[in-house]
Amino acid sequence: MGKEKQYTVLPEGGITTPKGFKAGGLHCGLKKTDRHDLGVIVCDVPAAAAAVYTTNLFQAAPVKVTRDTLSEGGMLRAIVVNSGNANACTGDQGDADARTMQANMAEALGISKNQVAVASTGVIGELLKMDRVNSGIAELPSRVLGDAQGSDDFCQAILTTDLVKKVSCVTLTLDGQQVTIAGAAKGSGMIHPNMATMLGFVTTDAAIGTPLLQELLREVTNVSFNMITVDGDTSTNDMLVAMASGLAGNRELTRNHPDYEAFVQGLRHVCTELAKAIARDGEGATKLIETTVVSAVSDEAAQAIAKTIIGSSLVKSAVYGADANWGRIIAAVGRAGQPVNVGTVDIRLGDIPVLEQSRPVPFDEEMALEYLKTGTIGIHVNLNMGSGTATAWGCDLTYDYVRINAAYRT
Amino acid sequence: MGKEKQYTVLPEGGITTPKGFKAGGLHCGLKKTDRHDLGVIVCDVPAAAAAVYTTNLFQAAPVKVTRDTLSEGGMLRAIVVNSGNANACTGDQGDADARTMQANMAEALGISKNQVAVASTGVIGELLKMDRVNSGIAELPSRVLGDAQGSDDFCQAILTTDLVKKVSCVTLTLDGQQVTIAGAAKGSGMIHPNMATMLGFVTTDAAIGTPLLQELLREVTNVSFNMITVDGDTSTNDMLVAMASGLAGNRELTRNHPDYEAFVQGLRHVCTELAKAIARDGEGATKLIETTVVSAVSDEAAQAIAKTIIGSSLVKSAVYGADANWGRIIAAVGRAGQPVNVGTVDIRLGDIPVLEQSRPVPFDEEMALEYLKTGTIGIHVNLNMGSGTATAWGCDLTYDYVRINAAYRT
Repeated sequence: MGKEKQYTVLPEGGITTPKGFKAGGLHCGLKKTDRHDLGVIVCDVPAAAAAVYTTNLFQAAPVKVTRDTLSEGGMLRAIVVNSGNANACTGDQGDADARTMQANMAEALGISKNQVAVASTGVIGELLKMDRVNSGIAELPSRVLGDAQGSDDFCQAILTTDLVKKVSCVTLTLDGQQVTIAGAAKGSGMIHPNMATMLGFVTTDAAIGTPLLQELLREVTNVSFNMITVDGDTSTNDMLVAMASGLAGNRELTRNHPDYEAFVQGLRHVCTELAKAIARDGEGATKLIETTVVSAVSDEAAQAIAKTIIGSSLVKSAVYGADANWGRIIAAVGRAGQPVNVGTVDIRLGDIPVLEQSRPVPFDEEMALEYLKTGTIGIHVNLNMGSGTATAWGCDLTYDYVRINAAYRT
Repeated sequence: MGKEKQYTVLPEGGITTPKGFKAGGLHCGLKKTDRHDLGVIVCDVPAAAAAVYTTNLFQAAPVKVTRDTLSEGGMLRAIVVNSGNANACTGDQGDADARTMQANMAEALGISKNQVAVASTGVIGELLKMDRVNSGIAELPSRVLGDAQGSDDFCQAILTTDLVKKVSCVTLTLDGQQVTIAGAAKGSGMIHPNMATMLGFVTTDAAIGTPLLQELLREVTNVSFNMITVDGDTSTNDMLVAMASGLAGNRELTRNHPDYEAFVQGLRHVCTELAKAIARDGEGATKLIETTVVSAVSDEAAQAIAKTIIGSSLVKSAVYGADANWGRIIAAVGRAGQPVNVGTVDIRLGDIPVLEQSRPVPFDEEMALEYLKTGTIGIHVNLNMGSGTATAWGCDLTYDYVRINAAYRT
């Protein structure tokens, strides 16, 4: 990046930190345990809204409803989310149920239904228990809070088998006004029959129009959420929704705004931290892998190569085993379908050079082993060709990944 | 297919069964155990030759040497193969070593060096111990045999950590002459640092010109070896070489030959059997998965979808766990990047329908569990769109895959 950091991380912040946002969560009965399984984010005013969705052709009912809703107006007052059931592959009844969630949430909050987004994660192919969902939705407005508890309750409600809540918050200055950006996400959980689902929610009090928010969200997603791989499977339910209340009082953001870069940096930080948290909490993962590719012919080439490395089961297994297996890394570089000069590749594991100009260099095996036993593993590839760069994140492949995903349905 | 089978499987046949071929193997000292690690196939006459190579940009030295050699003439008398060292990422010395293997094998057999192909599999990034290789090559001619023992010795010599030898042989009639086609292969073995390498060798006594043999080998590879996935990693050393001695005495094959189809069928059978054997013997595998996609918009679309399913870690884990997890299958269908009608997908596990017209259908869980505990699992997807079909093969993802590939180098 090289640019000066123009934002401050708020370690205690959450999705209710930006002005105008409240949130809450409760247990309505979709999960077998008593953990929260229904949550809502509410904005005091109509918020500019943008979203990106799964590229899977089989889109769950809530994805279709939210997409339709945002295509009509682009302003949201609320997002209602359930876990425990993905409402995917549920046909016409599933579509109707997602619409009912939207309508009932709107009625309970006294707002228009076209101001409510819907998201779901959990079991595929089963109909929602709508009596439980409806009771929960009716109770949700009395449970929303504008403080850390509200944010925490919401974050709990969107988890499936995620081990940790994922939240990030930064503050920055636009026109001398303090602006806050926050986000919450869930990653690779597994409730059978299901696949890893990513849900992300961004709140900010910045004043920004819907079209620019949509463009920015797409740009930032491409270098954050779209650069993580847990197992290469794209869920039917993946969704990232952003809401901007505008209550910070800044002059509406444009690409020419003098503090535009600060906002982009802040949004990118929030999305990147959430993406890394998802990768680190991948099913069965014990380590975060961060792969950086530099001096590729283009950023796109660097991205493709970084994602091929991070998606290689052989590389992932080697990291789990703390094995400095550069042969698997260069093989991944070579099959990524991108221009590579086969004689000029350098590879480092952390600070340890293992390959220079495509030839192995002697390294201290003990030092490499110690490094590969740490919790965050850096794989650095320099192609020595152009100016394209990219970073991708993933996790190791472990016995537990197989155990979790081989589990019988019982 | 639908066509009558025009060949006969020879269960006891091997690569020395076609007229004109001898083979052998021995231990020269590249493997730490006393197992064979150097082998050769020899033809009594110059054989028409064709090959397909890894698409990985980083091609091992023997791949480059064999490619150069076949581009010059297309006739081979011998193929020399070592296991235990891939001679990959070994720079100029590696190239020179592969050329030395070629030249020394030619000298030992009293033939021209441009009639010798070279293949290697094993450790990446280490130079070959050429004193051992050269001693072995000098001894090889005295060890070649035209019988089952010769074929067996060669098959042993190309294995790394493969659990079983992979060989297939068929016979058929061209112009009333008996023709035999045989093949041997190695699959996903692992000697650190390394990745799965596929080597395949086809021998036949059919009379067929090099150009047609090359075209046919490519066509058949696309529906056999190119339709298997163990872990998605493409090795630096993958190579498939075919030799045709012409000693069966048939009129030279052309696409208009009345028995052309019989030869294609036979070659396809040999390559498919070897491919399936590689998938079944994938690292840590306990089951062969066969995925058939029918009624896609094109064969290419069906191929892409079948390979996406077979490559899904979530699907592979579910098969290991005998879990009838159709949600993961349909999610793989939806992310394959191919045209799919989201309302018309049928999925069967073996004979058990689990999804019809994209909606779950009730099925007997016990029956599904019993089926998924068998050794060969069929996943059948009907898109109900066009006439495109494809079959792909893979294996389950198991604890042992992770164990094997996480191993420390010691």
